[in-house]
Amino acid sequence: MKFSFKNDYSEGCHPNILRALSEHNEDQQAGYGEDQYSLQAKELIKVRMNSKASDIYFISGGTQANLIVISSVLRPYQCAVSASTGHILNNETGAIEATGHKVLSVETEDGKLKPSDITPVLESHRNRPHQVMPKLVYISNSTELGTIYDRGELEALSEFCKLHDLYLFMDGARLGHGLTAATSDLTLEDVARLTDVFYLGGTKNGALIGEAVVINNPLLQQDFAFNIKQKGALLAKGRLLGIQFLELMKGDLYFDLAKHANRQAMKIKNFLKERGVEFLSDTYTNQIFPILSNTLIERLSEDFEFYVWKKMDEHFSAIRLITSWNTADEAVIRFTEAIEHQMPEI
Amino acid sequence: MKFSFKNDYSEGCHPNILRALSEHNEDQQAGYGEDQYSLQAKELIKVRMNSKASDIYFISGGTQANLIVISSVLRPYQCAVSASTGHILNNETGAIEATGHKVLSVETEDGKLKPSDITPVLESHRNRPHQVMPKLVYISNSTELGTIYDRGELEALSEFCKLHDLYLFMDGARLGHGLTAATSDLTLEDVARLTDVFYLGGTKNGALIGEAVVINNPLLQQDFAFNIKQKGALLAKGRLLGIQFLELMKGDLYFDLAKHANRQAMKIKNFLKERGVEFLSDTYTNQIFPILSNTLIERLSEDFEFYVWKKMDEHFSAIRLITSWNTADEAVIRFTEAIEHQMPEI
Amino acid sequence: MKFSFKNDYSEGCHPNILRALSEHNEDQQAGYGEDQYSLQAKELIKVRMNSKASDIYFISGGTQANLIVISSVLRPYQCAVSASTGHILNNETGAIEATGHKVLSVETEDGKLKPSDITPVLESHRNRPHQVMPKLVYISNSTELGTIYDRGELEALSEFCKLHDLYLFMDGARLGHGLTAATSDLTLEDVARLTDVFYLGGTKNGALIGEAVVINNPLLQQDFAFNIKQKGALLAKGRLLGIQFLELMKGDLYFDLAKHANRQAMKIKNFLKERGVEFLSDTYTNQIFPILSNTLIERLSEDFEFYVWKKMDEHFSAIRLITSWNTADEAVIRFTEAIEHQMPEI
Amino acid sequence: MKFSFKNDYSEGCHPNILRALSEHNEDQQAGYGEDQYSLQAKELIKVRMNSKASDIYFISGGTQANLIVISSVLRPYQCAVSASTGHILNNETGAIEATGHKVLSVETEDGKLKPSDITPVLESHRNRPHQVMPKLVYISNSTELGTIYDRGELEALSEFCKLHDLYLFMDGARLGHGLTAATSDLTLEDVARLTDVFYLGGTKNGALIGEAVVINNPLLQQDFAFNIKQKGALLAKGRLLGIQFLELMKGDLYFDLAKHANRQAMKIKNFLKERGVEFLSDTYTNQIFPILSNTLIERLSEDFEFYVWKKMDEHFSAIRLITSWNTADEAVIRFTEAIEHQMPEI
Repeated sequence: MKFSFKNDYSEGCHPNILRALSEHNEDQQAGYGEDQYSLQAKELIKVRMNSKASDIYFISGGTQANLIVISSVLRPYQCAVSASTGHILNNETGAIEATGHKVLSVETEDGKLKPSDITPVLESHRNRPHQVMPKLVYISNSTELGTIYDRGELEALSEFCKLHDLYLFMDGARLGHGLTAATSDLTLEDVARLTDVFYLGGTKNGALIGEAVVINNPLLQQDFAFNIKQKGALLAKGRLLGIQFLELMKGDLYFDLAKHANRQAMKIKNFLKERGVEFLSDTYTNQIFPILSNTLIERLSEDFEFYVWKKMDEHFSAIRLITSWNTADEAVIRFTEAIEHQMPEI
Repeated sequence: MKFSFKNDYSEGCHPNILRALSEHNEDQQAGYGEDQYSLQAKELIKVRMNSKASDIYFISGGTQANLIVISSVLRPYQCAVSASTGHILNNETGAIEATGHKVLSVETEDGKLKPSDITPVLESHRNRPHQVMPKLVYISNSTELGTIYDRGELEALSEFCKLHDLYLFMDGARLGHGLTAATSDLTLEDVARLTDVFYLGGTKNGALIGEAVVINNPLLQQDFAFNIKQKGALLAKGRLLGIQFLELMKGDLYFDLAKHANRQAMKIKNFLKERGVEFLSDTYTNQIFPILSNTLIERLSEDFEFYVWKKMDEHFSAIRLITSWNTADEAVIRFTEAIEHQMPEI
Repeated sequence: MKFSFKNDYSEGCHPNILRALSEHNEDQQAGYGEDQYSLQAKELIKVRMNSKASDIYFISGGTQANLIVISSVLRPYQCAVSASTGHILNNETGAIEATGHKVLSVETEDGKLKPSDITPVLESHRNRPHQVMPKLVYISNSTELGTIYDRGELEALSEFCKLHDLYLFMDGARLGHGLTAATSDLTLEDVARLTDVFYLGGTKNGALIGEAVVINNPLLQQDFAFNIKQKGALLAKGRLLGIQFLELMKGDLYFDLAKHANRQAMKIKNFLKERGVEFLSDTYTNQIFPILSNTLIERLSEDFEFYVWKKMDEHFSAIRLITSWNTADEAVIRFTEAIEHQMPEI
Repeated sequence: MKFSFKNDYSEGCHPNILRALSEHNEDQQAGYGEDQYSLQAKELIKVRMNSKASDIYFISGGTQANLIVISSVLRPYQCAVSASTGHILNNETGAIEATGHKVLSVETEDGKLKPSDITPVLESHRNRPHQVMPKLVYISNSTELGTIYDRGELEALSEFCKLHDLYLFMDGARLGHGLTAATSDLTLEDVARLTDVFYLGGTKNGALIGEAVVINNPLLQQDFAFNIKQKGALLAKGRLLGIQFLELMKGDLYFDLAKHANRQAMKIKNFLKERGVEFLSDTYTNQIFPILSNTLIERLSEDFEFYVWKKMDEHFSAIRLITSWNTADEAVIRFTEAIEHQMPEI
């Protein structure tokens, strides 16, 4: 059977979660997120990010979190701004537009937005009231290209947003991976301090489902639960989300799982680098994009699953490899050995 | 600690589900509902309802299922018709309207719609194009009042809908309870034959989350998955839904769980009836609405949780008691004994 | 040819408007409502209602005004409350719901909302966040049944809305007729003082198209123009609306036209009353609902157009007669003579 | 007073329209587009485009027409494709997105879409159901850059759309100008034959308001009127639109007005070309984009209004000049003389 490096949601969840689900299975709890586990999990997150005044809601998945947050904070004529690689632009079947809001796309080199990327958007949208009003900046960390924001970059962006009366919203489907990358100096505390809203992804970091939406800006907190219910995202058995985040936030589990995924990716990356392979982008998280010969790619495909990401020229393509909280050393070894075996073909 | 009869989603899930989640936890599977468990579970449901041509999709919860189905099948100017007690009218924060569609409300005695309830709605909406066009009939089985449709009633409604070019959509959040009620002659096969769309509820019948949306009308099947994704309801780890329905559909588990819930409710009902208690409605499913003295209600509240549903007069109110797949005999006994103890107060 | 009492928009517009359109036809003006006529017309309205701080926008028609105002002021989970006879509930093809917002319907006797009508709505919508949040009260003056609010009633409603943090929005498609009814003690100044938003209808009072939306609540003024543009309601040649309102607001023309319409309706009403005819509702504006024998209705139908509004019993029905700014004495005389001629049939 | 070349909606309407409005002012007519003038105008258009089976609706303006057409024909998960210069992308405050639909933007040189522009969009949107489904191709003729489609181009695009099951929708706000350009071989008959929907613009070609939406594809005709009403675009006094189109379609008036506008623009264009001025794009309709020195632009601004469209370098910019059905020879002469006077500065 082929081993899959296609994504970080191919397996189930961390065993601690299954254990806790079993242990608490018979307890009667209030529905709709009022259960004890959800309340405790929220407290742990607040302590961790040192932001007592933030509001936290657990939601099943990333698209759902994105559409609820964006439709909740924008007025009908306001829009979001995203890097052209943003998940909301390419991979959510128009979920944001379906709530009535445009997403303006900005070309970037590395999937990250800088103030200088946004300034031209603001300047080209001043024909009031004939154009949408940019009001929310959507970023991902780590990004869809595996890159990350460092503290200085996020501070600059946050300051820019405040200056221009824009909300800053971070899609954290892979926030664990972003924060624990070897090159990252950003902390969860920083993220809470510098964004208006963000979420802490569970689905891609050891949970079955679940993203923890954190609302830091008090103006955006009011009545948020209504939006969750209206979009069909308020689980009757909210305990399912609560138990998972409670387990993930105990000790350093959440961050350890992300570190593991990053580490496994870096092993493959370093292995390839040593052999002279080039990469589409220089990443330190659990997504890597090595450029390989089509012949090698074909042979690797016999034993492994992954996406061919981009055709570079007639003979070479970049592939995307994703490791997860559950990627075993064995899988990494099998993959590097397969490469070694085909070495002349790199 | 108080025992709760407030709803049928206070506990976790059937142990078979937890066992299966553990057993398959390490298997790598395709995401977004393409996993093997989902595919197998769908096959089991198709066999059970004898409807190979139906399409099935697993969705997290009832509000989500309702809003996706309704927004998917209606044109912008079309609307749904529902009994005034319908979940979509009262308990979903305007989720249907948020997708752009009106829901017309019809007063009924028992939460069920008959052709004669719908005819006046059609007659009063003929001022084209100045009024919304009724196009979908929304029913629940069992209903929000615990009542059920028998086969003759559903056949009559289905025929009426076909005659008037209306879609018939059954909210089956408690379909198991409806079909296994002692007084029901309706089968899952009938439901598949007589409705355009319906769903088979998991959340209220032993699953952690999950409703199986079944699309019988081929015209409504096209591209349905896009709607699920766009509304944020396509889980990356669709395996979570697949595994649950696979377990529930093995043998008769799904129906056995519902039968158990009904049986426990009937025990309480019969106990009260024998003592002369009257009920708000005559139900045979897991929801009962006994009318008790306020004094008794108060005393019961010390040991049990339940909703006070409706004030009848100065001294009496109807309460709602809900039993579940997990309501133990002990809970029933504790409750009836508590009543017995307070007997003069009934 | 039959004379039509079906509505108040069967004819063109007041001749002063045509004259002004011709006179200014060659003047070059800024587009999108920035023309001189619009600016002047707004000033005249502000003076008339003694409310300098209000914002005014001209919009083509009533449905458009309703949907823009309501979708502009509500958050996604908030809804409007309307009398069951409200235009937004019955005659706008779900225009409000199409913007995502539910409209809660309240049964009334006369098409008017009182605080005691709204209190039960608030009380039955407290299951946060599972239900929509009532936030805007929609009223019409004159109502769809021809009735009007007096000052005391509007003050009570306004106070109630402020107390419960609800917006009060008056649909003024026939505001001229409401304010100039013989029994009205309400003034335009009162309306500006007591509502958050209202509009002054042109289409049904002598204009070709046009409603003047007046936003009194400063919190609702911000960025309103964006909503108009987004809904396709910002006319390139805003001059068409500006010129019309400028003419209507010169002197007392707007109110004189409404008074004329009311007067003609009252002539018919009094004529019928003197002959013992009863009415569905006791109105003093340009809509009357006499109850006539079906035989008489049939004969009148040969020479006049009107709506048969409601079947009263086997032999009698209420009809709706609407007079307009342009209903000539001759039409009234022809109608009363036709009645006179058929008198035994009343 | 400055003469304005800013747009083609600075003045009122063609005198024939004012005459007809006056002449028919007292006639009673049915409301909501059922008036005699509307019916006659539709017949004239059908004859003119030789397409009896098409359905026609009159709507107030372009943004309204665009949003009603697009939201009416698309399913929720489908989207439109437009040149990046498209009016729906830049100048309508997100009106299309507000109805729930994304608009994919394609970079072009001249504001026109070719099959080869659309193919990559289709290819990059095949990750079903994770991406929106391109379903409607939006084009303008003449375009926002003043360019036009010739018959061969439109035939190729139409064939491509049929092949890929895409709807072809032409925004014809300036269709008169497009069809009567000296270089155009396209006819109204061609447009009716080759598009699924288009509209014939009145607002920018001599009417006060009004676009005639023509639905050629029978599948898109059903219930279209409901959408118009729901979006607030069904005028009570539809006569206002009917009378205008009836006058414009009598004889060749509509086309003569557009020809006049084109001719005046060409006079200025030729004058400038003879003097060596270059243009941003080579247009033959009523929009021209000459590149002038900033010094000259500044001097011209003292006597004329126009938009500075694009900065070319430090010393030169392109301006946009628009002529209209009403641009007198005198205005053209004043402008060319002003240029002549400043000649050394070109």
